[in-house]
Amino acid sequence: MIKSMSKKGRILIIPKKIVTADKANSIIKNQAVEIFDNKISAFIPLNEIQKQNYDEVYNAHDLTLIPGFIQTHVHLSQTLFRGLADELPLLEWLRLKIFPFENAHNEQSLRMTTKLSINELLMGGTTTFLDMGTLRYGEVVLQEMINSGIRGFSGKCLIDINDLYSDFKSSTKDEIKDITNLAQSFHNSADERVKYSFSPRFVLSCTQKLLKETKEIMKDFPGSIYHTHSSESLQEIDEVRKRFHKENIEYFNSIGVLDDHTVLAHCVHTSDNERKMLKDRNTRIAHCPSANMKLGSGIAPIPQYLKEGISVTLGADGAPCNNNLSIFNEMRLASLIQKPVHGAEVLDAKTIFSMATIEGARALHLESEVGSIEVGKKADLVLIDIDSYSNSYSDSEESVYSDIVFSSTTENVRSVMVDGRWLIKGRESLVYDQKEIISKGKEELAKLMKRIL
Amino acid sequence: MIKSMSKKGRILIIPKKIVTADKANSIIKNQAVEIFDNKISAFIPLNEIQKQNYDEVYNAHDLTLIPGFIQTHVHLSQTLFRGLADELPLLEWLRLKIFPFENAHNEQSLRMTTKLSINELLMGGTTTFLDMGTLRYGEVVLQEMINSGIRGFSGKCLIDINDLYSDFKSSTKDEIKDITNLAQSFHNSADERVKYSFSPRFVLSCTQKLLKETKEIMKDFPGSIYHTHSSESLQEIDEVRKRFHKENIEYFNSIGVLDDHTVLAHCVHTSDNERKMLKDRNTRIAHCPSANMKLGSGIAPIPQYLKEGISVTLGADGAPCNNNLSIFNEMRLASLIQKPVHGAEVLDAKTIFSMATIEGARALHLESEVGSIEVGKKADLVLIDIDSYSNSYSDSEESVYSDIVFSSTTENVRSVMVDGRWLIKGRESLVYDQKEIISKGKEELAKLMKRIL
Repeated sequence: MIKSMSKKGRILIIPKKIVTADKANSIIKNQAVEIFDNKISAFIPLNEIQKQNYDEVYNAHDLTLIPGFIQTHVHLSQTLFRGLADELPLLEWLRLKIFPFENAHNEQSLRMTTKLSINELLMGGTTTFLDMGTLRYGEVVLQEMINSGIRGFSGKCLIDINDLYSDFKSSTKDEIKDITNLAQSFHNSADERVKYSFSPRFVLSCTQKLLKETKEIMKDFPGSIYHTHSSESLQEIDEVRKRFHKENIEYFNSIGVLDDHTVLAHCVHTSDNERKMLKDRNTRIAHCPSANMKLGSGIAPIPQYLKEGISVTLGADGAPCNNNLSIFNEMRLASLIQKPVHGAEVLDAKTIFSMATIEGARALHLESEVGSIEVGKKADLVLIDIDSYSNSYSDSEESVYSDIVFSSTTENVRSVMVDGRWLIKGRESLVYDQKEIISKGKEELAKLMKRIL
Repeated sequence: MIKSMSKKGRILIIPKKIVTADKANSIIKNQAVEIFDNKISAFIPLNEIQKQNYDEVYNAHDLTLIPGFIQTHVHLSQTLFRGLADELPLLEWLRLKIFPFENAHNEQSLRMTTKLSINELLMGGTTTFLDMGTLRYGEVVLQEMINSGIRGFSGKCLIDINDLYSDFKSSTKDEIKDITNLAQSFHNSADERVKYSFSPRFVLSCTQKLLKETKEIMKDFPGSIYHTHSSESLQEIDEVRKRFHKENIEYFNSIGVLDDHTVLAHCVHTSDNERKMLKDRNTRIAHCPSANMKLGSGIAPIPQYLKEGISVTLGADGAPCNNNLSIFNEMRLASLIQKPVHGAEVLDAKTIFSMATIEGARALHLESEVGSIEVGKKADLVLIDIDSYSNSYSDSEESVYSDIVFSSTTENVRSVMVDGRWLIKGRESLVYDQKEIISKGKEELAKLMKRIL
């Protein structure tokens, strides 16, 4: 079901302009980008191009070249459940829908939801992601990441307590055994394109032993990420307080799992003390505005986090609480929802674009590899049409970031390259037969629903 | 620049399903929709179809047929200024950007912004709109609406006071003369497809004489709409209080301009007394969530309005404060922004879909003509792909409204018919050469910017 992979080689892309996301936020015109194997090898002035030197010359004179987008919190296992869990707050959404659905996955349904997710992420220009995984068959997701050509982290989602849906958990011992095996098999596979993330679901679903031992095991896998949820809804936070007599982030801090390789999804409600801990530990926040709104969780204090120097990046979370995996929705919403509270000038388009590119790379410790268009970095690139009917009609640089953040959707994405290989070209997937994966996804969903009844 | 119009005739559309938006919210399968001239003439069971009876049979077995969307507040004149007025609150946005830009329009630039707007609205499935117009050349917009085939209301935007940008106003006398002439020329033109709307900009830009006389003149044009802004930002409301010692809607009520043919855009901040007036007068609210967020104005109390029986419909407002004209953005956001305040269950997808279709028709007194798919209504129809890679994979009816409201974008719209005539087909415009209007739009914008300097 994977098409034969397009070849790497010596490729020249000639775009209208290049939005680099480098330190100077350079916007480059009249230069082509040369890719050799999986890396950006040079910028070439248009009058110095020698076309015969390349395996492929991509003439994209109407398109803008930008870095691939990076999403720091997604749930590939949930994509199959889109549209089937609307109008519920977080804990009910987990109890009535998401945990029963995830629990009913078998290898086949998990493989299909993974393919559908990777397809959707690529079609929307996302080239790197941090996935939360699910309880079982973690190897299916990681193998599909290797096969597809996308970049990212995934790992088994850890649950050894489950008061919401008791069928959906494992034992502490099995969890620890499984993650050690999985990390050994998959961390830094596919030329380091696929990495392992250790993913305790959230405080309420993990014993302290599991949370702590996972952090210990992680030290054997440099470059891996500790990925969990925190402080999403008030109801969840109340429950955490009842159990631990602490705020969520205070509890994480007290057991030693907060550091610069920990990514906390959400952090919608935090105290001064918790924000100080996030700053002191250099812990990273994955902000998911659509999900926070749709589940009624609240509006995270992002301008405050940024002011305090806390790392904030973006993720679509799961399709059932979004209902898309589009970075464009998240970029636009991340800016818009803050403005009634903090004023129209906060979180301008350039800031948001950085959060979805180079800051995402930094959060995942990939900033020397991806997140911006610079010589020596890996070629994770997106060609986007920001001169479409629904973008700005100005050719000034003023509107470039606005065009990407405020007036584009997945529809504007034309071609996507990961690690020097085209995965989407001219809006056609070179990875999947889309009709086939949609059709097989529907079949697997129907079977999965029968397993629940 | 208008392509030759596609013909009306006897057309049969065979969709996968039909989401009618009728009183029972029926979803119909295994039936085709017959269109004769400009009206829906019958539903035909699939086994009774006689293809030889039709000028055209559109086999859309993968697509869902829905009513054309209705937007009750847009600014066609502003589309050319997209991306050039970000990060500003309402009054500064008007003073520094929008009023100088609109003031610099000539006939050519206004024609191009109108074409670009109509193109974008159609590409996103909007078939009827209520436009605010601009100060000069109102006939250009109305003529282009006639030429394009879209349905809607427009009219001269009335300004006879302007403390923000004094060049951008007219005299009370001239305003009144102009609207009488324009309404006589254009109201109910093109087989009643194009109607006149009387459009005082907002309280701060109109004398009481102008506001009142406009309402009087309107009585000579049954079916026309009185369209203005109200209670958008706190700064604006403070200014209204200073001038009139009243709340905005109280002032409108005191001078007799509130009734069931008045549409007030925004109403973000209203008092109990104002809401009582809106209810008593049966006045309609056009809710513009993107613009309210982007200008930092606030979150309108929509669940409260609906509970109190006040009519609420949707509009994208202007491209510079959105930055799109997509009903999909507005539908999704209208639901999402309320949930952190009122809970995850408020404003479900079906309610939102109604606001964007049949409730929009009702607000404009067009409910016997458009807004739902019923025999005898005019054929304003959209074929949408809600089985795409980014929609639900369930074939249950549960997810239909969710697929339209939460997981679709303009990309999902395939074909659009207005008044029995295809205007978009297979995502190609049958009205405009899109490359040409974008290119000419850019030229006109560049010239307009020179006129400001």
